[in-house]
Amino acid sequence: MADEKNILTVAILGGTGNEGSGLAARWAMQGYRVIIGSRNPEKAEAKASELNQQIGADVISGLGNAEAAAAADIVVLSVPYAAHKATLEGVQSQVAGKILVDVTVPLQPPKVRTVHLPEGQSAAMEAQALLGDDVRVVAAFQNISAEHLADPAHVVECDVLVCGNDADAKAEVIKLVEAAGMRGFDAGRLQNAIAVESLTPVLIGLNIRYKGKGAGIRITGLD
Amino acid sequence: MADEKNILTVAILGGTGNEGSGLAARWAMQGYRVIIGSRNPEKAEAKASELNQQIGADVISGLGNAEAAAAADIVVLSVPYAAHKATLEGVQSQVAGKILVDVTVPLQPPKVRTVHLPEGQSAAMEAQALLGDDVRVVAAFQNISAEHLADPAHVVECDVLVCGNDADAKAEVIKLVEAAGMRGFDAGRLQNAIAVESLTPVLIGLNIRYKGKGAGIRITGLD
Repeated sequence: MADEKNILTVAILGGTGNEGSGLAARWAMQGYRVIIGSRNPEKAEAKASELNQQIGADVISGLGNAEAAAAADIVVLSVPYAAHKATLEGVQSQVAGKILVDVTVPLQPPKVRTVHLPEGQSAAMEAQALLGDDVRVVAAFQNISAEHLADPAHVVECDVLVCGNDADAKAEVIKLVEAAGMRGFDAGRLQNAIAVESLTPVLIGLNIRYKGKGAGIRITGLD
Repeated sequence: MADEKNILTVAILGGTGNEGSGLAARWAMQGYRVIIGSRNPEKAEAKASELNQQIGADVISGLGNAEAAAAADIVVLSVPYAAHKATLEGVQSQVAGKILVDVTVPLQPPKVRTVHLPEGQSAAMEAQALLGDDVRVVAAFQNISAEHLADPAHVVECDVLVCGNDADAKAEVIKLVEAAGMRGFDAGRLQNAIAVESLTPVLIGLNIRYKGKGAGIRITGLD
């Protein structure tokens, strides 16, 4: 939970989607200030007021992506891969000096159950290359079922592997993972996002093949 | 368990290592005929006799890699990535028409906790490209701790993601997974081996960072 005297503001770009909304509600309930970002500010405001109603508080606001990023301490990017590059280009100056949490999975519809490596090997590495070293990119949350996240009461049976090149930034994001009700593990360098992102199409395939809804992973064997 | 009337013979190339030996002992105990393959036939024989003693039976034999592959119904490849290509080239005609189970992880020592994508994106895809479509390559077992496998009594707390382009071959390999005491999941096309192989350096990193010995994964959320 964020320190009362030092409440962190988290912006979720693409926060009107299932995954972003679920994270927003969970973080707001744990005392973070949350801003939903969207290309369309009105959609962001509408989602924010819907979520405030859902959690019975008034701590979530809605803005355009760039305004949301500018107002935040930590920026979370939760957009379809097709919008990844354009969204980042639109907030480049607003995220300078901040932590960017990249949730993006480079799925290639309609083949969403087969691994597809993007040109830069992973979306998170592409984000880092685009934003430069002044932004601390951390990859996380790519394997979490959006459906399960969306219900704040649902216990998510999936661990979160957190990758990045800056230890302090990863520690901050692991706090966000725990605030959202999950276990977070430091999973190494940002390059390891290749493993985490590419696991998502595998999990989607397991859902289809084994008729599940929220395939996830638990890390075992560390006791 | 293999049908009494139709006992399958499994060759494990590179079977003198920890991972291969562990699989050999577990399969032999479940009624498979097992051949340990090695570049050095004497080392293979020595390991086979050691394993026979360990399990109190005489069903494991040792041969050179090519002879082992020739005598087997299913061929398992468990070698360090540096020996992957050369080993495959040496058994190309012996594996024609068979299932090849690729256990190889393309680690790049000394950076064994960071994902390294090989030229062909995954070792298993490189094997398929090298061997041609006549061989049914199935990727499996890459995330299993060799240490845990080596003790046949140890319950391995890790699921096995099985990737390949041939459904029957995957079903056969899932039987091998179960015979070795683990749960196997059909994880989609061979291309998805990218995800499974690249998870291994992440697990190695977790072992180092969290002082574990056998980090693994369990698939959740399919009930």
